[in-house]
Order: sequence, then structure tokens, then C-alpha cells
Amino acid sequence: MRIAAKSAGVGDEPRSGNVRAKRADFTDVRANNLGYVLRQVRAEVRCSRADLAAKTGLNKATVSSLVAELIERRVLRESGSVIGNIGRPAVLLSVDTGYFASLGVEVNVDYMTLVAVDLAGNRLLSWRRAHDGSGSTPGKSVSALAGLAKRAVDKMDSEGRQILGLAVAVPGMVDTDGVVQRAPMLGWTDFDLTARLQSAMRDPKYAVTADNDANLGAVAEQRFGAWAGIADMIYLTGEIGLGSGLIVDGELRRGATGFAGEFGNLRVEVDGRVGRVEDFASIHTLLSELSESDRIAGTEVEAEVEDIVTRARAGESDVVEALARIGRALGAGIAVAVDLLNPEAVVLGGHYQALSQWIVPAAESELAERVHASGAGGVKLVVSTLGHEAPALGAATGILNDIDAGLMPTPLGT
Amino acid sequence: MRIAAKSAGVGDEPRSGNVRAKRADFTDVRANNLGYVLRQVRAEVRCSRADLAAKTGLNKATVSSLVAELIERRVLRESGSVIGNIGRPAVLLSVDTGYFASLGVEVNVDYMTLVAVDLAGNRLLSWRRAHDGSGSTPGKSVSALAGLAKRAVDKMDSEGRQILGLAVAVPGMVDTDGVVQRAPMLGWTDFDLTARLQSAMRDPKYAVTADNDANLGAVAEQRFGAWAGIADMIYLTGEIGLGSGLIVDGELRRGATGFAGEFGNLRVEVDGRVGRVEDFASIHTLLSELSESDRIAGTEVEAEVEDIVTRARAGESDVVEALARIGRALGAGIAVAVDLLNPEAVVLGGHYQALSQWIVPAAESELAERVHASGAGGVKLVVSTLGHEAPALGAATGILNDIDAGLMPTPLGT
Repeated sequence: MRIAAKSAGVGDEPRSGNVRAKRADFTDVRANNLGYVLRQVRAEVRCSRADLAAKTGLNKATVSSLVAELIERRVLRESGSVIGNIGRPAVLLSVDTGYFASLGVEVNVDYMTLVAVDLAGNRLLSWRRAHDGSGSTPGKSVSALAGLAKRAVDKMDSEGRQILGLAVAVPGMVDTDGVVQRAPMLGWTDFDLTARLQSAMRDPKYAVTADNDANLGAVAEQRFGAWAGIADMIYLTGEIGLGSGLIVDGELRRGATGFAGEFGNLRVEVDGRVGRVEDFASIHTLLSELSESDRIAGTEVEAEVEDIVTRARAGESDVVEALARIGRALGAGIAVAVDLLNPEAVVLGGHYQALSQWIVPAAESELAERVHASGAGGVKLVVSTLGHEAPALGAATGILNDIDAGLMPTPLGT
Repeated sequence: MRIAAKSAGVGDEPRSGNVRAKRADFTDVRANNLGYVLRQVRAEVRCSRADLAAKTGLNKATVSSLVAELIERRVLRESGSVIGNIGRPAVLLSVDTGYFASLGVEVNVDYMTLVAVDLAGNRLLSWRRAHDGSGSTPGKSVSALAGLAKRAVDKMDSEGRQILGLAVAVPGMVDTDGVVQRAPMLGWTDFDLTARLQSAMRDPKYAVTADNDANLGAVAEQRFGAWAGIADMIYLTGEIGLGSGLIVDGELRRGATGFAGEFGNLRVEVDGRVGRVEDFASIHTLLSELSESDRIAGTEVEAEVEDIVTRARAGESDVVEALARIGRALGAGIAVAVDLLNPEAVVLGGHYQALSQWIVPAAESELAERVHASGAGGVKLVVSTLGHEAPALGAATGILNDIDAGLMPTPLGT
């Protein structure tokens, strides 16, 4: 389904010898230029071919050829015209939001989320439903995922849209083949999620992929969040479990085998105790300590967190102190990540958002005390503006990043 | 001194809106192509213009024009010819090793190292001299550095070589302006090393820069070490102090303000004690525990380490146990870095090389136990093949990476 535009004749980059290619993009000049023109139109919202030639420095014939291909591929469209001071009206171009759709789903302990976006990243669908992830077998979860995805596919079909891909966000370690090595909160081990889902979706023509929820949350934050475009950022999930996605020099980094960002496993010393950050600072831990209900891994997490917020607002000292402990433990873990990666911002996602006023001050104190660089290297602790939607949104938009990089889609029937 | 080749007409990439440019290289097609041709010649060692056209897919006229510029810039040269089956003999091209030289120096607690390389990375000079870094004022260290560098510049001058740049490796935190925020082992704080050295070198025409020693060691390892070309690697220094340089997706990553890789400051729990990795695992700590001399921060570090190796070989149990403790502490720190970054290899530099047979097994046990990914994500603990020369070599070769990326130098008088 996803193909690169035809090569303009530049061959593969050598990786022999000990000189690694610094820049990976010589393989396909035309693909690069297609992506370049698309990003330019995105940045301008609407612009003419003449604007594009002026902005890119490419000559007008090249711009016309690139634009023609992008229109044919249903990536750009003509959208009205303006009359300038001289000559003919200029036709304006914008991103074609009417044809393609990309789907992202998140499966978690207490819910599933589905997001569909068009090529401009506008939400076409944003669904959330309760799902007892910890109480379901992997097979039942796949059926539920497939059921949700099929409803979305049907809806997109009925609107005449072509699906670009379906990506799943999972709270666990997902290898580069889309196999879930482990997702402890879901009870999954070595589970080939993409193969199973592909089969449940009856081998669709679009790609079915899976990735860690924190990785995809980071992708969404970097594209749509309050800190969009930031070069160095760490995103922390705040659902039942705790994971991180790393944006370094503007890109998501997955590590050699796909397991980068295992923030929850960092061993820290907090309040005289040594343990994993996740065991000290996850929402699961918070609910274990504070919930008045026995049922913390099911589908009532959101209500439980709301209850904790209410009690914290009322000034219940055990609640406030438990939240400060969470903040100190998070801060201890973040300090480690900051010492290693020196990010500009750490974005707290999921439920941390609702709890931030009690958590963040404690975390900031730990950072100031622990990080080696003065002023903690200037890092800012901020809360997500995308909330629980971030991982599914990132799943849906990862493919938009590929398109922006020049991997252009092909409409059916062309 | 360092200039980019002229633009082929492609303008600046927009960073407006929330779409960050995925690829930064559209600004200068010709610079990219110059770097591409150079890297191709490097990979092939020697090749003809026709080979380049075939390998790159660029047309022959473009290749000829690019090669002409690279020869004029003293980056490539013609070096003999071969007679093929048909037609005229083909002129072979190779990297011009005869004109430019790049200088790197490292200042440390017990020594200074200077390396000069040509454009192929061949060592032209490799000097090491004792230097009492902890006993010297910053001013005295700058004088000593400048003295060493001037001798090298004179030597290069006498050989008719033009200096590309002088870069200094410092065991401490260096910001993006080349100011040393702190280098505790040297006793430096907020010291504007590059400005001071530039002045001591009488404002030379080439760039004077400074960076963290571990960052530069990582650059050298990634270009020349046994694991050259590796995409995801962490390099650990093993001089008196302990630092790290991070190679992520093929590039050195410095973080938002230049302070990434503060490995020594990571807080770990080892053998029931909680503290900074550097306090548990540095060579300084090892010597403090084992040295029979009072003088461990001066210039006798190498001799002291050799003595420890001799005692370990003889099976002295306190020495072997101290080395295993160092290994466990290093392993605890490396486990944190592996959980976050999932590298393919961790390279132990400096004195860790000589001590590796006693340190590495203990470190590996900790990794296996602590890292979340099974099999520690496949990470390998290896020892540097470049040894103490790595940071100075990396300092000298950083500029070669810039040239490979298309930032071509200009010979004097052109």
C-alpha cells in the first residue's frame, strides 16, 4: 500500500567501510521533494505553485510536476484561487483532507481508544470504550480491538475514504516486528499482536502495526501537543502503568531492538526505599494505596482517579502526602532520564494531568536536587494537553510522518 | 573557515506550524551531493568518475562538476589510473590526505593528549604528555594546552598543511558555546575554555571548540573503533572520572543544552548502598580504595592502574573483590542507560580496558538481573580498541564528520 515515489536516479547510500552515512536521504530525490512540497503546504495552510517555487527555490516546472503527482495521489488538492495584482488568478493548494484516513487504537487495562485522522491530522473519529484488559484473554482483546477497528473501517468506507493503516498502541514492550514481548498489566507475553489482528481484520490491504503506547504518545505530543516541534522531549504515560517515549533531536528513538524508554523499570531510591519507578509512582500504585475499592485493575480507574482528586482538593492529608510521594518518585526517575538525555521538556500524560498540581512540585524539588547540570539543565515538567487520547492519536499519525518524509500513498484504482 | 558549498537554489526549510522538518537537508542540494560523492570515494577507497556516476545515479556531468570542486577544495585528488577493457584509461580518485590537518587535544587530570589527522583520518601526530590537571590553575592548563597545540600547528605548517580546526576534549560539562560549566576533577567552574584558548592561540583563522571528553570518545569509537558504524552505542570514559557519550540512531546526541550523557551522576543502589555511579565505579574510587600511594589525583594514574592489574593477576583477593564491586556498580548504571536507550553495545574506554577481565563479568550479571528487556535487549559490553586516545581522536575527527555531511573546507588562497 505504502510506496515511495519513483527514484530520480540516485542510488542506495553505501554503508560499507567505517563511514556511516550522516544523511540518509539521497536515495530518492523525488520522494524527498514530494515530502518537502507537502510540508511547505502544511506550514502555509494554503499557497500557490508560485509561492512554492519562491519558498523552496525549486524551479516552476519541477514544482508543477511535484504538485501534479501530489494531487494525483490525493495528498494535495486545489482549493480556490486568489487574484493578485497582476496576471491570472493563482490557484491555491491545500492538504487533501477528503480521501485518506489513518486509524490508531490503544488497548489498555481499563479502556480502548480509537482515533481516525485525515491527512491534515483532523480527528475524523475519536472513540473511547471501557474494556477490561486485565480480565480478558489476549484473544478476547484482539477480538474487541478488531471489532472496534472494523466499525471504524466501515464508517470510513461509507464516507468513501481509503484507510492508510491501522496501528495499535500497547502498554508494554513491542519489538520491531510488532510482537509484544511483554505487557504485564494486560498479562501478555510473546504475543504476536500484529499477526493476530491482521488475521482478525481478514488480511486488509493496509498495514497493521503495533508499538509501545508511550512511543506513540510521544509522537502525538511532538506533532500536536502544546510543545509540538520540540527537539528533545520525554513523554511519560500515566495510565495504570508507567512508560516513556523519547524524542531526541526531533525524532522518536526506539533503540537497537525497539525497547528504549523502559522508564518504569528504572531503579531509584526515594524516601529511603529502593525500587522500580513504576512500583513507586504508577497510577496502579496510587490506587493500591488510596482506593477505597478492591477493584483497581478493572474499568473504574477514571472514577477512582476523580475520587482521589476530590479528596486531594478537600485537603485529605493522607491523599496529599501519597501524591507527593508519587511526585518524588517520578522526580527521582525523571532525574535519571534528564542526566542521560538532557531534554527540554518532560510531558506528563494520562492521569498525571489531573493530579499534576499535587505531583509536579514534589517532582521538581527532586529534579533540582538530583540532576547534575545546574537548574536541571533547564528541563520543564509540563502536562499533556492531549490527555488519554495521545497514544491512539500517535498511532494514527505515525503514518502522516512517513508521508511528510516522502513515502507517498497510492489511492486505490490508480 | 568552514563554509558550506553554494546552494543549488533550494531555500530554507520552514519550521513554522507544528510540522517539524523530518529531514534537514533540503537547504543545500549541492553540499549534500558533495558530501555524498566524498563518502562514496571513502567507501571505495579509490574509484573513477564513471564508477561514481554508476554508484550514485547522478549523471556524469554532475559528477564531474562535483569532483572538480572537491579537487579544488583539496578534499579529493586524482591518484593514478586504470586501463579497462575498452576506451581511455580511467583516472582514479581518492581522498586528498596531503593538505588539510585537524587537531584534537584532551586535557585530563594526569595527562594531555594531542592527535592530528588528515582527511582520511590517518594519524599525523599522536602525542601524550604528563600534565597535573588537578594541581594546575585553569590558566596554567590553558597555557599548557596552547603550548602543545602550537607545536603541532608549527609542525603542520612546516609540512605545508592547513589546519581545519582545534577541538578540546574536557572531562566535564561543556555547554553548546564551549564554556565548561563544571569539570570537578580539574576544579573548573564556568570557565570559558574556547575563548581563553582562542586568545592563547592568538585568534587563529580556524575554529577553536570544546566538548565533553565522553562525547568525543563516542565520536571516535563510532568512526574508527571496533564497532564503527554502529547505530546505537554508549561510550564510557574510564579516566579518573566517569562520563558517557551517546550515539543514538547513528549520531552523537548532546541533549537540549549540551549536557546529555551525565552517566557518572546516576544514582544507583549497589551492594545495599545508594550513591552516584561515579562515586562507586570511577578509576578515582578504585585508586582511593586500593592505591598504596597517597597521590592518586596527580600524574601517576597509569602506573597505579598497572600495579592494580599486577595484583589482580596475582589473585590478591581484596583487589579482585574491589574490581568486582566496580563492575557491579558500572553494571547498575549501565542497566539504567540500557533500560532507557536500548543500545546495541556499551564501549568501556580508558583504564577500564586494562581492568576489563575482572570488571565485565560482574557488570554483565547486574545487567542480566536488572534490565527489563529479556537478555538485556541484546546489549554487548565491549572494551575500547582506541584506548586513551579516543577523546582526542574524536576531537580531531568531529570536523571530518562535518565535511562528510557536506560542509566543505576552503583552502587558503582560493
